[in-house]
Amino acid sequence: MRDVARAAGVSIGTVSKALNNAGSLKQETRERVTEAARSLGFRPNDLAQALHRGQSFTVGLISNDSFGRFTMPILEGLESVLYEERIAVFMCNATDDPERERQHIEQLMGKRVDGLVFTARRADKRPNLGVDLAGLPTVFVFSQSDDPHSFCLLPDDEGGAYLGAAHLITNGRRRIAHVTGPERFEAVQLRRDGCRKALADAGVPIRSNWFLSGEWSESWGRQAVDILFDDPDDVPDGILAGNDQIARGILDALRDRGIDVPGAVGVVGFDNWGVMAEAARPTLTSIDMNLNALGQEAGRRILAMIGGKRFSGVERLPCTLVVRESCGAKSKTTA
Amino acid sequence: MRDVARAAGVSIGTVSKALNNAGSLKQETRERVTEAARSLGFRPNDLAQALHRGQSFTVGLISNDSFGRFTMPILEGLESVLYEERIAVFMCNATDDPERERQHIEQLMGKRVDGLVFTARRADKRPNLGVDLAGLPTVFVFSQSDDPHSFCLLPDDEGGAYLGAAHLITNGRRRIAHVTGPERFEAVQLRRDGCRKALADAGVPIRSNWFLSGEWSESWGRQAVDILFDDPDDVPDGILAGNDQIARGILDALRDRGIDVPGAVGVVGFDNWGVMAEAARPTLTSIDMNLNALGQEAGRRILAMIGGKRFSGVERLPCTLVVRESCGAKSKTTA
Repeated sequence: MRDVARAAGVSIGTVSKALNNAGSLKQETRERVTEAARSLGFRPNDLAQALHRGQSFTVGLISNDSFGRFTMPILEGLESVLYEERIAVFMCNATDDPERERQHIEQLMGKRVDGLVFTARRADKRPNLGVDLAGLPTVFVFSQSDDPHSFCLLPDDEGGAYLGAAHLITNGRRRIAHVTGPERFEAVQLRRDGCRKALADAGVPIRSNWFLSGEWSESWGRQAVDILFDDPDDVPDGILAGNDQIARGILDALRDRGIDVPGAVGVVGFDNWGVMAEAARPTLTSIDMNLNALGQEAGRRILAMIGGKRFSGVERLPCTLVVRESCGAKSKTTA
Repeated sequence: MRDVARAAGVSIGTVSKALNNAGSLKQETRERVTEAARSLGFRPNDLAQALHRGQSFTVGLISNDSFGRFTMPILEGLESVLYEERIAVFMCNATDDPERERQHIEQLMGKRVDGLVFTARRADKRPNLGVDLAGLPTVFVFSQSDDPHSFCLLPDDEGGAYLGAAHLITNGRRRIAHVTGPERFEAVQLRRDGCRKALADAGVPIRSNWFLSGEWSESWGRQAVDILFDDPDDVPDGILAGNDQIARGILDALRDRGIDVPGAVGVVGFDNWGVMAEAARPTLTSIDMNLNALGQEAGRRILAMIGGKRFSGVERLPCTLVVRESCGAKSKTTA
């Protein structure tokens, strides 16, 4: 502001009036200030906002994902939107330590951030922050608050699993199993619901003993194949995995048994984790949670909140199917 | 500072004098200030520093690792050290965009951070920042600057590869291959040097045609097995992989060929990437770059720099060997 005032040869008060279109100024003065602001790289809008609200042009992202696998695409999406408005994102890592998280929040608020985004390694509800955010624009993304007034952006896990199961069905599978992660994850329950719904909608029988819950690991995927293929006369021809690590284990175990994928069994994963999906044999068809798009939406909402809008509740954004080789058409010879 | 002054019933100037051990104050006044600072959770040292230098108790971390796989453990190590000094780490993601990086640096400097740490997805030299850091304490970690005055902390890739190859030799391997990533990575050259050195030191023959360079992928690891095991009368009995993805591909391809690991061939990876190493069959022995320890050391150096010390040049911290199942003793029957 001071720079603009100096360049235009006017007082800071005049700059404020000119950029806020407030007060009585000569048109010539107003134009001189706007021009000076522009030549200094300010967009009048930004500056006006900054003058108005003491905006700091920074948003804090607090992550509890120590792997970074979920947070990094969210951060990229968030940054890509906020960068356009010259707002920087400062990320802090809390690694499930409430004390550290509180310190991060306080330090970010001390820096007068314009908003806070919370994210995590899993989308489940988390305990209240225990910090008064004093009305600061706040978005939970791939994470949920148990405060009903909070605003949470999540992937549509149920819809994603529905897509995956429907893809199996479209490719001729009628004997479908679902091998997924630990029951305590909300995502596990939602993905199972989505899978059951797709089967029900298509009139495909639901075999409860083929809905298996275990760990989020390749080794569990391999074990699940031992269970599902124990009786050679009663085996699935399609498997929806709860994540890509499980899917990868399933593919390796089917390969060990000499079972053709996708000829005899189609497999669909969840996460679309590049290094897993691309290296699988065959390459893995998977559901993408579009975390980058979630991050972008978080950015748009934070901007709207900075602009005075308020949101609350849970919104879920669609997942998409990424087709690779593991669930082509079922081969007729093995049908 | 104001709080301390209020609690001690003295002026801010007196607080400053007391905590800096400067000026002439009654011993009793000095003690009252120190006690007030302590009761408010300040350590006198911190406060003195803050008064002195206008310290903001924040350090910026600028990352060019969009996967987060390398940055997250570095961030955790850095945070764990700085947290003890009540300094927060604000991370920004630059994803190889120099313009965005410049904006991040400027925004962090505008917030008066006490130091900057740069990291990346690969440890190679990077072009100059093109920003005047005005003497701000700066550390490059798992990243290098081409400015000779900069200070860079790196893993000892050569030493790590030496450890891996020595482990193969200790376990009876004498026909050792090295399958690694693209030549353009400095780490590829250093790891190859370390492997050659371990072989030379142990009097194990170096077979140049068994030193293979390709992509950082499982699929390249599998291809390399096809090359190395093409002539069944002339095959390796130990393989050091340039990273864990390559090692994983090697293990899968050896399994496909019915070659026993570790009985006939021992395999050692590099990165100690949990999800890859633990899921491998057999589980993968690997070299750990100790990125968390690198992050901690970066934290200690930044603190020393804030305290007035200066460092320059490149320092490399040791890697360690993490033994799992893929390189036990060579079995006598297949020797």
